[in-house]
Formats: sequence, structure tokens, C-alpha cells
Amino acid sequence: MSEEKDNIQFELTNELIQQVEQLIETKKDKELKKLLDDFHHADIAEILDELNLEEAVYIIKLLDSETTSDILMELDEDNREKVLRNLSSKEIAEEIEELDTDDAADIISELSEERQQEVISHIEDEEHKAEIRELLAYDEDTAGGLMAKELVKVYETWTVAGCMRRIRGQAKEVTRVHSIYVVNKKNKLVGRLSLKDLIVAKSDQKIAEIYIPSVDYVNVHDDVEDVARVMAKYDLEAIPVVDANMILLGRITIDDIVDVMKEEAEKDYQLAAGITADVEADDTIWELTKARLPWLLIGMFGGIGAASIINGFSDAMLKFPALLMFIPLIQATAGNVGVQSSAIIVQGLANDSIDGSILKRLLKEFLLGLVNGLAIAFIVLIISHFVFQTTYLESLTICVALISVIIMAALVGTFIPIFLDKRGIDAAVATGPFITTSNDVFGILMYFLIAKAILGF
Amino acid sequence: MSEEKDNIQFELTNELIQQVEQLIETKKDKELKKLLDDFHHADIAEILDELNLEEAVYIIKLLDSETTSDILMELDEDNREKVLRNLSSKEIAEEIEELDTDDAADIISELSEERQQEVISHIEDEEHKAEIRELLAYDEDTAGGLMAKELVKVYETWTVAGCMRRIRGQAKEVTRVHSIYVVNKKNKLVGRLSLKDLIVAKSDQKIAEIYIPSVDYVNVHDDVEDVARVMAKYDLEAIPVVDANMILLGRITIDDIVDVMKEEAEKDYQLAAGITADVEADDTIWELTKARLPWLLIGMFGGIGAASIINGFSDAMLKFPALLMFIPLIQATAGNVGVQSSAIIVQGLANDSIDGSILKRLLKEFLLGLVNGLAIAFIVLIISHFVFQTTYLESLTICVALISVIIMAALVGTFIPIFLDKRGIDAAVATGPFITTSNDVFGILMYFLIAKAILGF
Repeated sequence: MSEEKDNIQFELTNELIQQVEQLIETKKDKELKKLLDDFHHADIAEILDELNLEEAVYIIKLLDSETTSDILMELDEDNREKVLRNLSSKEIAEEIEELDTDDAADIISELSEERQQEVISHIEDEEHKAEIRELLAYDEDTAGGLMAKELVKVYETWTVAGCMRRIRGQAKEVTRVHSIYVVNKKNKLVGRLSLKDLIVAKSDQKIAEIYIPSVDYVNVHDDVEDVARVMAKYDLEAIPVVDANMILLGRITIDDIVDVMKEEAEKDYQLAAGITADVEADDTIWELTKARLPWLLIGMFGGIGAASIINGFSDAMLKFPALLMFIPLIQATAGNVGVQSSAIIVQGLANDSIDGSILKRLLKEFLLGLVNGLAIAFIVLIISHFVFQTTYLESLTICVALISVIIMAALVGTFIPIFLDKRGIDAAVATGPFITTSNDVFGILMYFLIAKAILGF
Repeated sequence: MSEEKDNIQFELTNELIQQVEQLIETKKDKELKKLLDDFHHADIAEILDELNLEEAVYIIKLLDSETTSDILMELDEDNREKVLRNLSSKEIAEEIEELDTDDAADIISELSEERQQEVISHIEDEEHKAEIRELLAYDEDTAGGLMAKELVKVYETWTVAGCMRRIRGQAKEVTRVHSIYVVNKKNKLVGRLSLKDLIVAKSDQKIAEIYIPSVDYVNVHDDVEDVARVMAKYDLEAIPVVDANMILLGRITIDDIVDVMKEEAEKDYQLAAGITADVEADDTIWELTKARLPWLLIGMFGGIGAASIINGFSDAMLKFPALLMFIPLIQATAGNVGVQSSAIIVQGLANDSIDGSILKRLLKEFLLGLVNGLAIAFIVLIISHFVFQTTYLESLTICVALISVIIMAALVGTFIPIFLDKRGIDAAVATGPFITTSNDVFGILMYFLIAKAILGF
């Protein structure tokens, strides 16, 4: 009995990386293999992500394709692209042979059109080749783009004993058996079975007698986000994928959905922070600039808009300079309130929990804005009066403006995401800088209009 | 063969809710039961979330506890709390008997201390009772708080045939068999097996000959976020939980991890938007205010700080009124850049991909800020000169200030999350309003200091 490794404790140390680099430099292949054999492929991928390209390719060519194919799947996308460029089409095809169809299709789809054909032509297993071709045809954001062809399928006419015998063969190809899918003779999905059900059943029973006819499934063209929602809602670990005629085409497993959910969450988080493309801290300055500059420019035009408004009221400002001081406060508050309101709505939309009338929701935001606005205006009133010695009318202006701006920002932050969602636009783009910028401009305009009404300039 | 329901198409319509309400009002229990029997428990929970408390309790009391226990688990937390308050301790205990230990412990932990003891005393199954007591002792944010006691466990000394016979009994209690855990006679975890391995093995083989000794596991006191990271990284669908002596205590399944990940992502998103507690759009105005007002107050103090700075430079402002116009632009840009930088770092920290020296990272942000700053300053230069007719020195001031503020905001946005993380504080609190507010104040101060240096007031 060997002592188990605790994978939770894998730590990528500088010593380990130096050790690997040294073994590569001195070409001690045997020792290097022995060292890496102890690690999970996801850990080896982490090591490779730290090496330079030449070293990474060296290791990929050293280890056998059963391991390296898994390592490739775990590599950082940019690094994988570079490594693949350094492998011949035949070498890539060898990796592909080892992968499940879904992973194989993912890797091939990252190659250039021309390279894709070359690699596919080198795949020897004809069935694998045909299945990969099929998967490549689906949009990557649909169930078809995520599913694998590997699954365990039985016909309703089989007996339990015959079924056990046959699925032994099928199961060898499938890394994890979740559900066994039951089909009729036309390959239409009719139900499911678990291995547990099979083990518990008597061996001469017919599958038709024991299968569970209620089975969740998704259509091959369903959006992956919908698939993720269904699997999370019903606690599914795998879901079969069918076409419009209920023909069983493949299955999606929860580990792929976990990846989708992580990516979605990261994308939404970045959108809310005004980052338009999927970037990481280690990307180049150029990539980061491309992702960041667009929103900064929108914010800039908002700032120019605010400048125009202030410019338009410049005479009045000179008469009431105290009002100027509070421009940042008005602006910051409008921005913060808008971001809060929109974040809550965007999450509600993502969880499908926003229903009922928009009017009722806006009324609630109005009341919420009123409560928050009164609280903040009260504190600001005291500070502005005693610290900045503003006149009564100036204090009144600031307080009325604060309350109005908070209510306005809450309404805008609530309305825009719902409006976009109804038009079929991803509401997540609406939070962050977009809401902030529009609230900045509206807020300052409102401030001056209220000042004008109260102070009468 | 029955036609399958496509669960992805379940839609919560007003008609359906009205139908259910009518059946409750007219006490047509049989019809109501028949209607609800067609739905998945997660769908019934959605219906109940739309009903009033009385109606929801009516349905919970109507259906059998096998279904209602699952429905309870899926209910919105606030609604579950209300429903449970309307059930007797004995009724709750009946629900608990039907649930897996992890779900049972979750529900009980939501009750008051006193009620917990009452409910537990009504549980008839002594083993279930002891297991729930054990789980209740763990912190809910640890592996122990998430694990279930239900699992399939075999001793290494058993034969395949004996094992198959015995696990039939165990498996009946376990909703899904992922891995079969292999223990030695002291109940120490030594390895794992899949049902597939068992089916493929010869029946007279010893488990000791066929089990896989490399098994991932987590310690019962590990943080749930770490467990989630390990399971996602290694694509695990279940992981065994052990104590310090490797004694097998329970297992965690991926569906619970999916829920943890969703909650984490939502919490981080809300923190970035300046919402301090876990709230939903449907919560009361009071709950929403409690979650939203704290950050608004911090933003308010930032605004007051900015007001003080402007106040301190008020004489200069009257001499160069053109500078005032650009305060919102400076402020908005500082805020946007800071949020972008911090969001990228916070995500990198969450993915464990932030390594290397802080200095190198700050240098990169400096360069990035310079590139973005030059681009924005150039456009603003043209607009301010031609549209607002600022003088050369004023234009110079605005451009130098913009570039400096963008660099400062990028550095602050990068440094603060890394600094907090090193101190063991969740970096997610650092994004959003916190970064925005400090950058607002710093940005405006910097603007005036640069103006003073260039224009010399």
C-alpha cells in the first residue's frame, strides 16, 4: 500500500521549476520523466506554464501522448497555442487520438482552418475522426459545442445481463459513467439508468422494465448558459444532448459546466469592472490596453460631457463657488448608487428571479433611493453647514440634489439592465462604467438644474 | 413508454400559479397532488416561492415528506425559514429523516439553538441522528460543514464478489455512487475504486489487488473555497473527507461545490459593486438599505474629502475657472482605471495566478497607465483646446494631471488587493467603491497639486 499524495498540497515552488529546468538543460530525460510521473497532469500543466516555450515543448515531446494530451488541455490557452505551433500536424493528431471527442474538438478548433484539415487527416481512428468532425460543426456556445460523443447507451430491448456484458466494452472508453442512456431502436432517447440500478436489478429483467422514463435532456442547439442553469438547478452530473427528433447525440458532464460557470462569472466580473475582453494579469500591455481603453474612452466622453455642463453654468458657479466643492460628492454618489442597483438586477436576471412588473420594481428603487438619500443628505447637511459654512439655500440645494440624484441613479441602474435584457442584450454589459458614466453626466446636470431652481441664477 | 418532460422548458407562468392557488382555496387536494406530481421538486420550490406563506405551508403539509424534504432544500432561504416556523418540531424531524445528512444538517443549522435540540430529539433513526449531530459541529465554511456522511466504503480485504454484494446495501442509501472508497481495517482511507472498475474486475479478485491507491482527499477543516479549487482543477465529481489521521469521515459531491462556486461568484460581484451583504432584488427595502448604505457612506466621506480639497484651493480656482470643468473627468477616469486594475488582480488572486515580484507587476501597471494615459490625454488635449479654448498652460495641466492620475490609479488598484491578500484579507472587498473612493480623493488632490506646480498659483 503506497502512501497517498495529497494533491491539495501541490505547490509550485521556484525550487521545483529550477529543478525541472536543470534536468532539461542537462538532458536527463529519465530523471525528468521520473520526477514528473509523480504529478497530476493539471500540476504538470502549471509547471509548463512557468517554463519558456522551448522547455515546455521539450517536455511535451518527452512524455507519452496519454499524459501530454491531458496536460495540453490544462495549459493556459496562450501557452497551448504556442506549444501547438511547435508541434507537427502528425504530433498533434497523436495527442488528439488520446483525448475525448469534446476536448479533441476544442483543441482542433483553436488551430487555423488549414492546420485543422491537416491534423484531422492524420487521425487514424476513423470513428474518432468522424465524431470530431461532427462536433466541430457546432457553435462553441451551444450544447453541441460542449458535448462529448463518449457515453454509455443501451437499448430498451436488452436484458440486464446482456446489458452488463455490453456496457463493459462501452464503459472502458468512457472516463466516468454517470448515467446509462436508454434508447429505442431508432436511437431516440427514452430514459436513463444508473449503474447502481443495474447492479441492484435481477439479471434476467428487461431494460424496458427497469429504466427511468423521466430524463432531463437538452437540445444540441441550446445555449451553454441555459445548459449550466438546468444542470445546477436539477443537481445533474451529466445531461444527454438530443436533436429535434430526440435522437441521442452526446452528453455533457458537470466538469465542463463548472468551467463554463467559472468563465461566465469571470466575464461578468470583468464587464462590471469595464474590461471588454477576457484578459489576465499576465497578458501583454498591448492586450490589456485593448481590453481596457474602450471603457476609459467612454468614461472620458462622459467627463467631457460633464465639463460642457459646468462650462454652461460657469457664470452661476462664480456667484456660488460653494456649490463647486460638492461636484465630486454628487458624482461619486450617483456612480455608486447606480452600480449597486444594476448589480442586483443583473444578478437577478442571471438567476431568472426578476419577474413581476417593472413599474413595481422601479417604485421600490424609488423608495430605496429616498431612504438612502435622506440618510446621506442629513449627514452632508450637518457637515456642509458647520464645516464649510454654506448658506441655508446652498445647503438646501445640496441636499435636494443629493436625494434626487440618488433616486435618479437607482432608477437608471434598475431600468437599463431590464431594458437591455428585454431586447436580448446581455445585461452584464450595462453595469460598471456604462451606468457610472451616464449617472455622472445626468447627476451633474441635475445638480445644476436644482441649484438654478433654488438659488435662481 | 411515457413521453418525457423536457425540464429545460419548465416555465413559471401566472396561469400555473393561479391554478395552484385556486386548488388550495377550494381544498381540491387530490387534483393538486396530481398536478404537482408532474413537476420536479426544484420546480415545485419555484412555485412555492411565489405563493404566500399559508399556501406554501398547505402544500408542504399535503405532499409526502419524501418530496417535501427535497422541496424545502430548494426553497429560497428566507421562505424556508418562514415555512419551518410554521411546522412543528416533529414535522421538521420527519422531513429531516428523508434528507441526506449534509442537507439535514444545513436545514437544522438554520433553526434556533432551542429548536435544533427539539427537532433532533424527534429523529427516530439513531444513526442518522448521530451523524447529523457530528456534522453540526463543523464550521459551515469548512469541508466538514459541506460533506455528507453517505458514501460507499469497502475494506481492502474484501473480494470483488463480496464487495458487490455488500455495496448493494450501501448504495441504496447513496443517491449517486461516484467513487467507492477503500479503507484499511482502521478505517483509514487507502484508495478508491469506481463501480466501473468493479464491474470490469473478476469476481474472485481481492479489492487490495485492484484498487487505485492514488486518491485525492481533503481535510475536514479545509476551507470550502480550497475544496472547490481542488475539485475544479482536478475535474473531480466527489472527494473524500478525512481527519488528521486519514480516517474517512465523509464525502463532498460536485453539486454542492457548484452551489459554493455560484455563491462565491455572486458575493464577489456584489462586493465589487459595493454591496456588503448577500441580498436579492426581492429583499425588503430595509435589508437592501443595510447592504447598500455602508459603502454609500464611505463614498460620501470621499466626496466630503474632495470638497475639502477644492475648498482649500478655492482662491486658485477663481483665477483659473477652466480647471473646474475637468474635475469630473479626472475623477471618473481615476475611478475607472482603479476598478479595472483591481478587478484583474482580484481575479488573478482567486485563480492563484499572481506570482512573481510585486515590483515587476507595479512597473507593468505603470507602463500600462502611461500608454492609456497618453491616448486619453491626447484626445482631451484636442477637445479642451478647440472646444473649451483653454490656454496652453491650462491644457498642459489637464494632460499631465490625466496621465499622472491614470498611473496613480493603476498602481493603487494593483497594490491594494495584493497588499490585503498578503495580510490574509479577502482582496474582493478592495475593488469597487473602496478603490473608487480613494482614487477620487487622491486624483483630485493630485490634479490641484499639478495645477499649482504648472500654473503657479
